[in-house]
Amino acid sequence: MHLATFDDDRLGVVLDDRIVDVSDVVDGTDDTRGTGGGGLGAGRMRRYIADPRPEEVAVAARTRPGRPLAEVTLRAPVPDPRVIVAAPVNYLDHQQEMRESADVGALGFFLKAPSSLLGDGGTVRLPYGDRRFDHEAEIAVVIGRKTRDVCEADALDHVFGYTGLLDITMRGGEDRSIRKSFDTFTPCGPWIATPDELADPADVAFSLTNNGELRQKASTSGLIWGVARFVAYVSTVLTLRPGDILSTGTPAGVSPLLDGDVVSMRADGIGTLTVRVDGSSTTPSPTRGHHSGPTPPPGDRGGAR
Amino acid sequence: MHLATFDDDRLGVVLDDRIVDVSDVVDGTDDTRGTGGGGLGAGRMRRYIADPRPEEVAVAARTRPGRPLAEVTLRAPVPDPRVIVAAPVNYLDHQQEMRESADVGALGFFLKAPSSLLGDGGTVRLPYGDRRFDHEAEIAVVIGRKTRDVCEADALDHVFGYTGLLDITMRGGEDRSIRKSFDTFTPCGPWIATPDELADPADVAFSLTNNGELRQKASTSGLIWGVARFVAYVSTVLTLRPGDILSTGTPAGVSPLLDGDVVSMRADGIGTLTVRVDGSSTTPSPTRGHHSGPTPPPGDRGGAR
Repeated sequence: MHLATFDDDRLGVVLDDRIVDVSDVVDGTDDTRGTGGGGLGAGRMRRYIADPRPEEVAVAARTRPGRPLAEVTLRAPVPDPRVIVAAPVNYLDHQQEMRESADVGALGFFLKAPSSLLGDGGTVRLPYGDRRFDHEAEIAVVIGRKTRDVCEADALDHVFGYTGLLDITMRGGEDRSIRKSFDTFTPCGPWIATPDELADPADVAFSLTNNGELRQKASTSGLIWGVARFVAYVSTVLTLRPGDILSTGTPAGVSPLLDGDVVSMRADGIGTLTVRVDGSSTTPSPTRGHHSGPTPPPGDRGGAR
Repeated sequence: MHLATFDDDRLGVVLDDRIVDVSDVVDGTDDTRGTGGGGLGAGRMRRYIADPRPEEVAVAARTRPGRPLAEVTLRAPVPDPRVIVAAPVNYLDHQQEMRESADVGALGFFLKAPSSLLGDGGTVRLPYGDRRFDHEAEIAVVIGRKTRDVCEADALDHVFGYTGLLDITMRGGEDRSIRKSFDTFTPCGPWIATPDELADPADVAFSLTNNGELRQKASTSGLIWGVARFVAYVSTVLTLRPGDILSTGTPAGVSPLLDGDVVSMRADGIGTLTVRVDGSSTTPSPTRGHHSGPTPPPGDRGGAR
């Protein structure tokens, strides 16, 4: 099943080019107010994940007409996760292109601010005119239930579904968690694919194009720490909750973003996540991390500022 | 006013050694379910901050008998913030003791997982037996309203209150955000002091003792980026919301934590936050950041593992 958040915190099932509103399935089971992260209650997707009703949703999806997908605005599938955890340096070819001596096994993980989430069709806004910003395509998992100290063999049982994620990154010597947490720096989606949509959750192929040019192409089978191992490890550090997002890392091919770029990530069994880039800001960076930190590949677009 | 979260997501006003339950002031204004971060709705403190009723609370505090503070269990004052942002290397003496070349102006900020929060009287659990963990005492601000791109002159108008925070830190080369995000690694409290409780929010004196021995002593007047500047800067990166926590950084004197330690942070105008340390774990660290990363002072307690 493909489950989306759209418009004003509506919950939908995506069937080809239609979307069926199933918000009432959540509303019928819980009297908290759904506000999609914009207000104080948990959004409908997070409430659904905490108490899923797949049979009711399947019936609704079969029997209701739905609307054309093109008529709605998709949001980040979980607009209000408690935490976004991401793996640094989790593909060998990306470790090589960044000339990083450390990989995920030395670095652990980092955090991204949930406020940086963006839905499919949104616009990534680059905050400064004097810094380099890259795309990093990743497969992310959405946690299905409270998880603490899960072993690797059981870890995937705690996963509600899979989605695409763009870990937009400012290059430089600032702390990793800020370089990746500017508003709009975490495009996610286009929706959540439940595990039955994937042939093998440990082998999800994905690719990224910028203005139609192929930039990244990989499968989660190439991860240094695979999906199950990463989930298990993170659960030894912190207690995970329904709707938490764990992004598994990016492969080689990161490259600079420029004003007007159209970036598209396609993942097998999930779908295609597309965003535009607004690089019109001329504001100078107020922090002095320029020309330090991890060394990205030079790029061929004049973006290695 | 001193506002606390206690027991099962109760909201209270602290008056000397008594606490007056004012949960009904929040419940009367909002029909979402208060679950203190344990469930899906926002906790009462976050709902109160979003829609404060200081007059009603003041009347309740004056007219109700209250209970002895010693009878209740204090929780982190905001148990469920959307984000915890913290300043790295924001006191010159701490920069010197860590032999850090970069300060907050180069590093920006980092994130801590909200799941790491702990209330006054709680127990910090050190996860591994082969690593060093330090205390870092800090003054934190709690954001009062939606804040984006606020200027330094107006920044303090967006602050709801001030509290103490212990940024418990694993030393090593792992990413900074994980080294500080283990469950129980963010003791916070004992409660929130509204700005009227402080003589000068830009000059809050605080100190930390471990087993009664003075370890850290400073004032926010010594910050490299002061409170207002830090709030203003963070708001240029991400949109802040009521209840978000911004911790301003730690001064010199960080030192290793050992099993059985009793760590106490006292802040003028706020109060005293005390936690115990459980260092009984013999689990080895699964990550390889040992003997890399920032270099802390050697310490005198055999903790420089």
